[in-house]
Amino acid sequence: MRLLFLGFGTVGQGLAELLLAKRDELNKRYGLDWIVTGIADTLKGNAYDAKGIDLAKALTMAAKGESLAALDRGGKGWDALAMAKHAEADVLLEATYTDIKTGEPATSHIRAALDRGVHVVTTNKGPLALHYRELAELAAKRKVEFLFEGTVMSGTPVLNLLRETLAGAEILEMQGILNGTTNYILTRMEEGLSYEAALAKAQELGYAEAVPDADVLGWDALAKVTILANVVFGASLKPTESPCEGITKITAADIAEAKADGKRYKLIGRVWREGGAVKAAVAPRLVDLAQPLAGVMGATNAVAIRTDALGEVTIVGPGAGKAQTGFSMLTDLLHIVRRRS
Amino acid sequence: MRLLFLGFGTVGQGLAELLLAKRDELNKRYGLDWIVTGIADTLKGNAYDAKGIDLAKALTMAAKGESLAALDRGGKGWDALAMAKHAEADVLLEATYTDIKTGEPATSHIRAALDRGVHVVTTNKGPLALHYRELAELAAKRKVEFLFEGTVMSGTPVLNLLRETLAGAEILEMQGILNGTTNYILTRMEEGLSYEAALAKAQELGYAEAVPDADVLGWDALAKVTILANVVFGASLKPTESPCEGITKITAADIAEAKADGKRYKLIGRVWREGGAVKAAVAPRLVDLAQPLAGVMGATNAVAIRTDALGEVTIVGPGAGKAQTGFSMLTDLLHIVRRRS
Repeated sequence: MRLLFLGFGTVGQGLAELLLAKRDELNKRYGLDWIVTGIADTLKGNAYDAKGIDLAKALTMAAKGESLAALDRGGKGWDALAMAKHAEADVLLEATYTDIKTGEPATSHIRAALDRGVHVVTTNKGPLALHYRELAELAAKRKVEFLFEGTVMSGTPVLNLLRETLAGAEILEMQGILNGTTNYILTRMEEGLSYEAALAKAQELGYAEAVPDADVLGWDALAKVTILANVVFGASLKPTESPCEGITKITAADIAEAKADGKRYKLIGRVWREGGAVKAAVAPRLVDLAQPLAGVMGATNAVAIRTDALGEVTIVGPGAGKAQTGFSMLTDLLHIVRRRS
Repeated sequence: MRLLFLGFGTVGQGLAELLLAKRDELNKRYGLDWIVTGIADTLKGNAYDAKGIDLAKALTMAAKGESLAALDRGGKGWDALAMAKHAEADVLLEATYTDIKTGEPATSHIRAALDRGVHVVTTNKGPLALHYRELAELAAKRKVEFLFEGTVMSGTPVLNLLRETLAGAEILEMQGILNGTTNYILTRMEEGLSYEAALAKAQELGYAEAVPDADVLGWDALAKVTILANVVFGASLKPTESPCEGITKITAADIAEAKADGKRYKLIGRVWREGGAVKAAVAPRLVDLAQPLAGVMGATNAVAIRTDALGEVTIVGPGAGKAQTGFSMLTDLLHIVRRRS
């Protein structure tokens, strides 16, 4: 299986490390035998070698800040988009940076690969939140897989859970803690920190960006509920069509009051059906301590899935992380291997 | 797809209701087109009709206490084992009563069906806890599926989660609340009831049997951890080889003391690796309130799965129920449909 890495940052490197560490086991247990034909990254450089790039070496070079271009053998100076269009590849691994407003450049990469019959695995929320239907239809037309487990709750298998193991149940409602940064901040505030101090701590730990808007204003959670609405509920929502409120208005006093009432604030993303339409929303909500979601603390994520036949099932797990998000791409890859066999 | 129901009690009827209610949808979405060629139940009678039994009528008759024998067309007086051996069938649905000491009669039914190339779906813990390896090897030899999602946490998809969506991760440890009855009793005791009063309430609600030993002494949870040890960890444990302690020694004073410490008693089934061996145990454990398992109250089940690549993932959901356990058989059936297509 010829793999093409577009984006070789945290997530791409996390996957590369797993592929190397588990190489023999993956081959033996699942029949996965891979080479990497191309790596393209705007910061780390581009390399193409149809015979296979030394992935361990690429990791070392990336860690040292050396340009990957030195690994190029017979490439034609291709950038990411050119590789998506022309590289010899069976699977495109799309992990370039997320732009939730335009979905680019990832959407163009994905479209180009699918269009010529290359499977796509991505962790990029932009293309999913904005162009899911178009891309899914293109994949179906070209009879290839288009998988994106890592876009929601990183490697915690919520999308695969819905597709594979809850097949046969009708999904009535989903609600969850879909952003680890805000859940971490709320957890620390409950322990007595102010919003500002909790945010600073989250930034210090690398959970929150210097400009934390995407997390604290709820946009990241909104992208994820939009993905769930469109993928799981068959809607055609755009992120801008759903109400979205972050955690910036929650005060220490609000949290203390909730605690006294036996409740807890959580930033909840929710998708549900209402009068024939699919609705989505992100907002802080008071959750009763007896609910499974109330017990999800720190940077952990969770989603509660209400179904017709089974009642409520909740899955709790990591929502971010290098190895975790890389792992999501590995599970998607293994799904492709299984489908081909 | 020709289905054979052995056992037509709560679980079998739960599946039958789902198959009828979702008939069109299952056909349209998954290509599942079924007839029922045989139903055998020691209490409700046996019926065989190679052209297809009227399943709705069978449900009505079972509800009224009428013998299913009236639906027989051209049967040869076959009982359950004879049907497993001779009935025209693609899938055996084994939901006869559980005998955790002998695994019979279910094991003989399953062996007979697998041996002649019939897929098997079961919710019966006995054959799994006692004869998993032999039956799995027979299924592999005959190239048929042997699926049993409902044996652990009923329809909550823990085994399918491990097989399908956590493929690629190494499972290091599992621990969970695998028995709803005891979790219900502990929940009520925390609310102030004595053990005896909480047990009586559980019996009144139908959660606990008149002789509640299998639940309160931990045997049911032990059967489930044995299944997890053998299926997920590749062990060859017998239930009798693992230590097992139930909840009968926990007093109201113990529970109050735990509460004062910010902890909570849960009956925990655990499987882990230790020095090259796989170990399993069932015992009451003090769980910190910050752990996801601590928040699992009432008859709900949960299992926390510790993995190498992904850290800890917890799944919470119903552990019993007519529709829920029936649903587990439906997901297994759909898995067979997908594999055949």
